[in-house]
Amino acid sequence: MGAKQPVAIVFDTFGSVVDWRGSLIADLTAYGATRGIAADWTALVDAWRAAYHPSMERVRKNEVPWTKLDDLHRGSLDMLVEKFGIEGLTEQDLRHINLGWHRLNAWPDAVAGLTRLKWRFIIGPLSNGNLALLTKMAKHAGLPWDVVFGSDLFGHYKPDPETYLGVAKLLDVAPGELMMAAAHNGDLAHARECGLMTAFFPRTTEYGPHQKRDYAAEQDWDVVALDIEDLASQLGA
Amino acid sequence: MGAKQPVAIVFDTFGSVVDWRGSLIADLTAYGATRGIAADWTALVDAWRAAYHPSMERVRKNEVPWTKLDDLHRGSLDMLVEKFGIEGLTEQDLRHINLGWHRLNAWPDAVAGLTRLKWRFIIGPLSNGNLALLTKMAKHAGLPWDVVFGSDLFGHYKPDPETYLGVAKLLDVAPGELMMAAAHNGDLAHARECGLMTAFFPRTTEYGPHQKRDYAAEQDWDVVALDIEDLASQLGA
Repeated sequence: MGAKQPVAIVFDTFGSVVDWRGSLIADLTAYGATRGIAADWTALVDAWRAAYHPSMERVRKNEVPWTKLDDLHRGSLDMLVEKFGIEGLTEQDLRHINLGWHRLNAWPDAVAGLTRLKWRFIIGPLSNGNLALLTKMAKHAGLPWDVVFGSDLFGHYKPDPETYLGVAKLLDVAPGELMMAAAHNGDLAHARECGLMTAFFPRTTEYGPHQKRDYAAEQDWDVVALDIEDLASQLGA
Repeated sequence: MGAKQPVAIVFDTFGSVVDWRGSLIADLTAYGATRGIAADWTALVDAWRAAYHPSMERVRKNEVPWTKLDDLHRGSLDMLVEKFGIEGLTEQDLRHINLGWHRLNAWPDAVAGLTRLKWRFIIGPLSNGNLALLTKMAKHAGLPWDVVFGSDLFGHYKPDPETYLGVAKLLDVAPGELMMAAAHNGDLAHARECGLMTAFFPRTTEYGPHQKRDYAAEQDWDVVALDIEDLASQLGA
């Protein structure tokens, strides 16, 4: 790490800060058992996440009007419940399951690392989640954000430049004073194109046995760390 | 307090959570002494705050395009420096003085009360300050917000309904699940008109010797408290 330090650091959340797959599989498996509803919850979670990018792409390409992530998740869930032939779910069940994305748990290093970074930098999520989702996730997981940037503040999903540059504008900093931190090379590549600083740390088990990429840094990011605690150490926090 | 509890509580900040007058007078007096610049800093602070509502009214009435509060503050400061005949201020000085609004200190009960409330409720500012101002103020004063609502998220200043209802929409709660907390009866009256719950606590020294109103609750607000610690107690936090 050179002398240059960011003023603020924004984090990708799903996969980078929280373990969406492990959290949802555990949450839904327990819920299914309590409700006596049989399903392959692991397969449902993987299929649900697989629907994530295509659902946002329809918004990004203006094929559908702006739709917040909670509603995209719900649309995908309804489709998958039918496809998987899961029987017996009430509207209340479906709402509870959909809000599983608000109940994700942090990776083991995340809270400690963010707490250290918060002393020195402004920290927040920059996620495709909507503000309510991210705020409730932070309460659930104990994420000590200073400020929350949801995609609904911008009416755009990453990697649209309106998201990265929108944060810089709201924080009144130059893009080069803002660092994007993520476990996804693609997110960082788009942030760098917008002039942001970049920090990578791998999450090699994010997709469980289905992980296909992001085992290591693919560009010379400003910081390449082992995890968020290591990021804090490298930034002197 | 009846049985009904809010999901989230948003706070007016200037005067309600932070002591803008005492903080700015101390900050600018010390800065003027360091820089060897003579001025009646107390009078400047009072005049600066007096320019606050008229400057926002010009935006609210569309006489000028959307302008964030940092920039309204700077316009008023430039006008007042000339009016007061303060000599010797450089551009760097003026920027530093203008950012005095980012360096306000909390009233003595605020951090403890907010910390208690945060365990039970989502808490954030809903202020006419812009997001950068509010985020930096929170870092300075140690305000433990979950999420930050600045007027620039809405492109509207309070008491425009877009602010109160904009928070409810972003948090995905009904207006009646959201509580506005403030030391200003007027702010609460507008919040109530939008369907929000309301909490009042007085700040009888906000304007120093110039205080003219808001010594006590003027409506039957949902909670009337002594301060933010008492608000936490009354809400069971």
